[in-house]
Parts: sequence; structure tokens; C-alpha cells
Amino acid sequence: MINKLIKKIEESKAPIVVGLDPMLDYIPEQILKEAYQDKGENLEGAAEAIWRYNKGIIDAVYDLIPAVKPQIAMYEQFGLEGLRVYKQTIDYCKEKDLLVIGDIKRGDIGSTSMAYATGHLGKVRIGGREYRGFDEDFITVNPYLGSDGILPFIEVGKEEKKGMFILVKTSNPSSGEFQDQRVGDKSLYELVGHKVAEWGELHMGDSYSYVGAVVGATYPEVGKMLRRIMPKAYILVPGYGAQGGKAEDLVHYFNKDGLGAIVNSSRGIIAAYKQKGYEKFGPLNFADASRQAVLNMKEDLKNAWSTR
Amino acid sequence: MINKLIKKIEESKAPIVVGLDPMLDYIPEQILKEAYQDKGENLEGAAEAIWRYNKGIIDAVYDLIPAVKPQIAMYEQFGLEGLRVYKQTIDYCKEKDLLVIGDIKRGDIGSTSMAYATGHLGKVRIGGREYRGFDEDFITVNPYLGSDGILPFIEVGKEEKKGMFILVKTSNPSSGEFQDQRVGDKSLYELVGHKVAEWGELHMGDSYSYVGAVVGATYPEVGKMLRRIMPKAYILVPGYGAQGGKAEDLVHYFNKDGLGAIVNSSRGIIAAYKQKGYEKFGPLNFADASRQAVLNMKEDLKNAWSTR
Repeated sequence: MINKLIKKIEESKAPIVVGLDPMLDYIPEQILKEAYQDKGENLEGAAEAIWRYNKGIIDAVYDLIPAVKPQIAMYEQFGLEGLRVYKQTIDYCKEKDLLVIGDIKRGDIGSTSMAYATGHLGKVRIGGREYRGFDEDFITVNPYLGSDGILPFIEVGKEEKKGMFILVKTSNPSSGEFQDQRVGDKSLYELVGHKVAEWGELHMGDSYSYVGAVVGATYPEVGKMLRRIMPKAYILVPGYGAQGGKAEDLVHYFNKDGLGAIVNSSRGIIAAYKQKGYEKFGPLNFADASRQAVLNMKEDLKNAWSTR
Repeated sequence: MINKLIKKIEESKAPIVVGLDPMLDYIPEQILKEAYQDKGENLEGAAEAIWRYNKGIIDAVYDLIPAVKPQIAMYEQFGLEGLRVYKQTIDYCKEKDLLVIGDIKRGDIGSTSMAYATGHLGKVRIGGREYRGFDEDFITVNPYLGSDGILPFIEVGKEEKKGMFILVKTSNPSSGEFQDQRVGDKSLYELVGHKVAEWGELHMGDSYSYVGAVVGATYPEVGKMLRRIMPKAYILVPGYGAQGGKAEDLVHYFNKDGLGAIVNSSRGIIAAYKQKGYEKFGPLNFADASRQAVLNMKEDLKNAWSTR
């Protein structure tokens, strides 16, 4: 899948992942109304509205991008109905040949991490057959529990040729509270970065590892340093746009081959129609606004790259 | 809920939480067979078997203990069907007046942590009404993203009078890789412990905080130190029994008032019938074996306490 991700990035010339992180207040009134009429103004109706909204966006952008990143929390908040739509969204994206990065930030001790790996990347054996739970192509993983929390994901990833992005330096304002602490002559995120590079050797694709890293767009100097520490790790970069990350800051997250990073935008694309510069689309054409936002982001990254 | 947890611990004289972490190979053949006959040898049948197994154990132990801790990963590995049974288990335990600690180890940046908090502790507004997703009483939370990943859980916790246990020092062998790193004159877990104490002040019950900590039974010296750093935090202690934690090591996780800690056992209780000393029960009486294992654990902790 890492080879496929790279191939799709090269073909689309768009190192972009669209974050499918729907909030009810992003969804146009008309869609909400119809979903509530059909399924009730309840968890099922809300989940249905999210599904219709997602489908509109996916249909409008799938030919432009290599991958999507649904944030499972946004579905989990609606309980089982939300998770049903999380799965429906994954399946639909895969039908459209999009790679799916499940932003699940799971991580636990050995046998429990193995259960998460089984449910999200692998398959579970029941009697004589095997079944898949959520079946993402990649997931995000939290490293706080150390190697024995990570290795089960790598084990299942190797069997399935699937991958993961491990949190190294996150994009939020307080990420430094623990991640920036000095540990000897390094910061904690550097130490985690070195481990990501080490774990990455265990599960290599052709040129990059299946074990990537999450490094927020909001800390460009850190991105530059981590790029050197983990030369073979793909970096998933959240924080572009709404959170303040700028394209010119992101060029150093890439390697000289123009590869090695994929930039996420969520709100900036899926709720583009609500933003400055996209007023002309209006709520009914929210998906066209999302398409335009992807094209604009692609251009923005290309321009930044050309001035590198 | 923290006051209720303490009241129930005092009444039951059992600072014990039973980890409902079912694996298919714990489940007696007869239950598996019947569930597969009724629902099919597939994800639905497996989930049904887990439900029947859980129900047997809950019915056998609910009057002895204050709380249960279902590990969501063990359900999530069966996809949506598994999560349906996770929810069914929560609802049934609450009917039995057990407190439910969802071992979900979630944690993300602001709005995403808020979505997790909403789905697991709070309620989501849909049109004019509010709905609950999973509705645990407490959850476990991962601190790697810092304060803005934690505060949303506290915010929702305050509204709902619900709580959380934040990972400080986990019970697994490699927990030290990051958690033990020296940060100035402290280790990282101490630093996280100090933050837990600080966050705890924001959401206090009568004598203890709604913000507790996870500290593994396998590192007793660390438990002793963290007990001092976080005097008002309830400590959830995994790692007793199967993972090697001994009762005499655990007494220092408690305060002098005999409160302040609750010890988890999962496999040692739910799969007791498979263990040495419980052979006489046999697979059909797995639930009676679990009841005996709870009684034995209660005695073990009491004896250890008396030699403190």
C-alpha cells in the first residue's frame, strides 16, 4: 500500500489527503433536513446526513487525490450509527480506488494492540473463516506505550501489506508539554522519531517504509529536523490551512525526490463552501466548492515547491 | 461517579475491577457452538458468543465488585458487531448497578478529543434533542498530546459528573521506552503524574478527583512514588495476576485511608476456569470459577493490606 500510495501521489501530482472529519454544523441544511425526514431526527438520521455529505465530497474529489483520512472520533461521537457510517465511508472510498488512512490514534499493550491491529488492518479468524472489521489501508497509532504497543501493528501490517503513521509531533498548541521535553541531548519527539526510523526498517516498501509518522504542519522547524531523522518514513502532515500551517513551511517535510510527505486538509476542503472565497458556490454546491478547494491546495503546494 | 465508585468500594470491601476483555479462545466450546448455530459462524455469531460469555460472568460477580472495565479493542476487532456487544455489555452492567470504566485509551487534539468525550461520556445534540453514544461512567485517556487533548474530557466529565483515568505508567515491558525517560530531574511519567494532579484540581469529587491515573502493578516502586505525587487521584492498576503484579506490591498504590486505588484483573477472572486451581469447575461452570476468582482476589488483597 505504501508503494500504491506513492504511485497515486505521483500520478495525481497531489500529495494531498482529504480529512473526512464531518461535523453536523458543516452539513448543508437541505441534506440534514432530508436525512432527518428519511431516518428520523436522531443518531441514525445524523449518521445518514454525514454519509450523504461524505458521498457528495468523495464523488467530487476522488479523481484528484490519492487518499482520504476519516477521523473516527467524528463518527464515534454518534455511537454505533456513526461507526456504521465510518465503515460505509471506508468501503465507498475503496470502491473509488482511494487509499484510506483511518485516523484512529489507537495504541495499547501487546495483545490489545494486536486486537486493534486485527480490527482495523487485519482479519479475525472465526471458526474456519476469516473476517475483516474496518479494513482501512493505513491507520494512525499513538506511541506512548513503547515498542510492544507498536510491534503488533507492524506484524499485521506486514501480513496485509498495510501501513501506519505513528504520532511523533502533533499539530496542537499544547503538543510540546510532553513531546518537546528534553531527554538527554534530544527532545522526546526526536527520540520517538528515531524509534519510527528503527521500526520502519522492519516493514519496508520499495523506497519508503510502511511505518510513517505524523508531524504537524504548525512546527516547520521540527518537520525539517524529523525529515532528516526518518529519511524513509512517509510523513502525514496535519495542520495545513485552518490550523495555521502554510505551504511554504511544508516543503521541508518532503525529501529531495519530491516525495516523503502527504498533507492533510479537513475543514478547509470539506467545509470549503462556508469559507471566504467560496461564497459563490452556496450550500447546495458544497461538493463543487470542495473540489475547487482541492485544486487550490494542489496549486498552493506546487507554488511553494517551486520556490524551495 | 467518583463518589459513587468510592462508596461502592467501601460497601463491597473489594477495590477490584473486572476487566471484560474477552478473547474467542477463552469462551467455552458449548457457548461458541450455540452462538454460531443461532447467528452464524461469522462476526455476528462471534459477537453473540462474547455477549453470552460476558453476561454469564457479570451475573456471577456483579454483587461482589464495584466496577467492570471492558477493553474496547477486544470488541473493535470484530468491527461493528463487536462494538454492538461492547455497548450491550455497558448497558447490562449499568442495569446491574456496576460502574463501567471504558478502557478506550483515546486522546487527540481539541475538537477531536471533544468528539471522543461526547461519544463516550457525554451526549450529542441532534436537532432539538440529545443522544448518548456509548455512555460509559469513566474512560481511560492517553496523554501524549498534552493538555488540549485532555481538557475536553474534563469539560464533558464535569457536565456529566463522570471521570477518566489518564495513562501515566503502563504495565507492559516496554512502557519505559518513553515513559521512563529522564526529563530534567524527573522521569516523563512523573511529569505526567504532576499534570494529572494539576488537571485533577479542575474536577474534584468529595475527597478524590474525577481525574485518575493508570499505573501498572508491575512497577511497584513507581506506584509508590506516583501515589505521593497525585494524592487525590484514584489509581487504576492493571497488571495484577496474569501480568505478574502481586498483591503485596500493590498496598503502596493505596492511601492511608485504604482508598485511592482500584486493581484490575481480566484474564485471571474471566478465564479463571482455564487456570490452575480452578479445574474442578470445568468449562460449563466458567462463571462460578470467575466468582471464586473474585473472592480469592479480594482475600489476597485483604491479606496483603493487613501486612502493610
